[in-house]
Amino acid sequence: MTQRRSCILFVVLFLLLAFPTACLAKSSVAQLSSWNEGAVKQAVVEFVAQIVDPQSPSYLPPHMRIAVFDNDGTLLPEKPYVQMDFATRRLRDMAKAAPERMAEEPYKTTLNNDISHLEKVGGAFLLQLLLTTHGDMAKDDLMPLVKEFMGTAKHPLLGKPYGKLAYKPMRELVSYLQDNGFTTYICTGGMTDFVRGYSMEMFGIPPQNVIGTTFRTELMEKDGRSSLWVKPELNIYNDKKHKPVAIDLHIGLRPVITVGNVYTGGDVAMLSYGASYKPSLQLLLHHDDAKRELAYDEANNASLNAAREQGWVVISMKKDWKKVFSEE
Amino acid sequence: MTQRRSCILFVVLFLLLAFPTACLAKSSVAQLSSWNEGAVKQAVVEFVAQIVDPQSPSYLPPHMRIAVFDNDGTLLPEKPYVQMDFATRRLRDMAKAAPERMAEEPYKTTLNNDISHLEKVGGAFLLQLLLTTHGDMAKDDLMPLVKEFMGTAKHPLLGKPYGKLAYKPMRELVSYLQDNGFTTYICTGGMTDFVRGYSMEMFGIPPQNVIGTTFRTELMEKDGRSSLWVKPELNIYNDKKHKPVAIDLHIGLRPVITVGNVYTGGDVAMLSYGASYKPSLQLLLHHDDAKRELAYDEANNASLNAAREQGWVVISMKKDWKKVFSEE
Repeated sequence: MTQRRSCILFVVLFLLLAFPTACLAKSSVAQLSSWNEGAVKQAVVEFVAQIVDPQSPSYLPPHMRIAVFDNDGTLLPEKPYVQMDFATRRLRDMAKAAPERMAEEPYKTTLNNDISHLEKVGGAFLLQLLLTTHGDMAKDDLMPLVKEFMGTAKHPLLGKPYGKLAYKPMRELVSYLQDNGFTTYICTGGMTDFVRGYSMEMFGIPPQNVIGTTFRTELMEKDGRSSLWVKPELNIYNDKKHKPVAIDLHIGLRPVITVGNVYTGGDVAMLSYGASYKPSLQLLLHHDDAKRELAYDEANNASLNAAREQGWVVISMKKDWKKVFSEE
Repeated sequence: MTQRRSCILFVVLFLLLAFPTACLAKSSVAQLSSWNEGAVKQAVVEFVAQIVDPQSPSYLPPHMRIAVFDNDGTLLPEKPYVQMDFATRRLRDMAKAAPERMAEEPYKTTLNNDISHLEKVGGAFLLQLLLTTHGDMAKDDLMPLVKEFMGTAKHPLLGKPYGKLAYKPMRELVSYLQDNGFTTYICTGGMTDFVRGYSMEMFGIPPQNVIGTTFRTELMEKDGRSSLWVKPELNIYNDKKHKPVAIDLHIGLRPVITVGNVYTGGDVAMLSYGASYKPSLQLLLHHDDAKRELAYDEANNASLNAAREQGWVVISMKKDWKKVFSEE
């Protein structure tokens, strides 16, 4: 019986020790299972370990652990921009309801070309397309359209619904950071309302942590109820040098970790802003995997140049990611 | 031995049951100890109970539990506006460094009158005062000034440092809501950067949950470092009809609980916006306690009228609060 009793006491002790641990969020390197071993994964794990260790000079209390991710090309593919595919399809639906507009822009160009054409048009045209498809509508009406689109519309090259195209290693990184006490944000050139339609489901990032491009919005009162009306008028285009301004507006703290990607140079200002504060970590994703996703560079190489000058960690999709998507 | 063994097994079972409970945040009505028993406290407790009960038709998952508080007059006294006292004192310091400006506005009027004079000047003058004292400076330079001011500058009537003047019942309400899974925000006509200087310490609301008035801000690069420069130019004045727009911009979800106060009518739009969504609760603080704080009404009574029409809960400072401040 003594043995049995010891055994039971052991169980009691085990539970006493185990449960407080269970109370804490689980954060383990095992969560980063889609990352290959190597310098990049090591840099992330070692940096996070310093931030959460109360004995480390780099220790930060949880409310100061801010991580900011770019969206397109960083958390999911950006060729084509998801939102532009949505806008194109919505424009097609709008044209069915008002065929007399087919001769006007942005209808004419958009509907007479396939989605790849949008890579060749200028920013002014893309803005016109967004204003037409996302403006002049009740705020509440957009969300169901976005949710349906993400669940059903398929990526033209990858052949899967956009909602299934979260980069698995990035999704793991978001969870890993959250479990280490970080608050994770998206800071995107895409529209806030569009990205909010899938950020929680795809990346575990709630709507209030999405910072993006916005249109002017007004309070509308009708039958004693208040709601919001989105005007077809740009408020803020949240790219490049505006990203640090928006991060301060929405967060008010310097991001400890910033994550962006190579393509348009849209994240250089945001990562430089993060790098001006120590301790900090900057991650820059390089799309160099034509087999599993796409391989492309940046015209003037500004992002990779800044990475070299400022010591950012460059992620090679090909080398550093064991898996790119969840279902492979 | 069987009895002893049962006893040990009981301990094991107890631990199994007890520890998961300990994992959950403790939320108890006892936290609201500065609230008198009565209809208001009961309304709050019953509403929260519905929201957190998975069996209730009003149940909401934690990420949708959004509570938004006005700041001046809701979380701390608003006569005078804390920020205006700060601005006045800062202007005095600025005048010492540049005495030749004493003859210009806003120096002349501000420095030749006491703080109560600011109740008589118009909004344009107050804006000029804010632009002069909060604009044309590095973002990082404001915070230390605000923190020092809140710790040392005393309220002219109440005789205590502003940093000690959080309404105790409101501070308890914030904690109570947070422990029930709510995310708590401040939506204020005051400047975001000013309120961020004390929101965490005074109310337990972190900087990223402060939504307020902002000036135009630009990225500044110097010696390879990025920082932000605040221009003396209004970006958004976050009052009245702008509050719902800002709530959507920063949160993207309807607030389940909105809390404001009677004085300028600044919270009517925000509370009406909250009330347009069910389930929801609106609380409106009436300053009717000349003995412990101040007693005042609103010129056109718009807030109390809206409260009656839309079923908001009116808090009487005199009747509903056992204590107003922590140190009484």
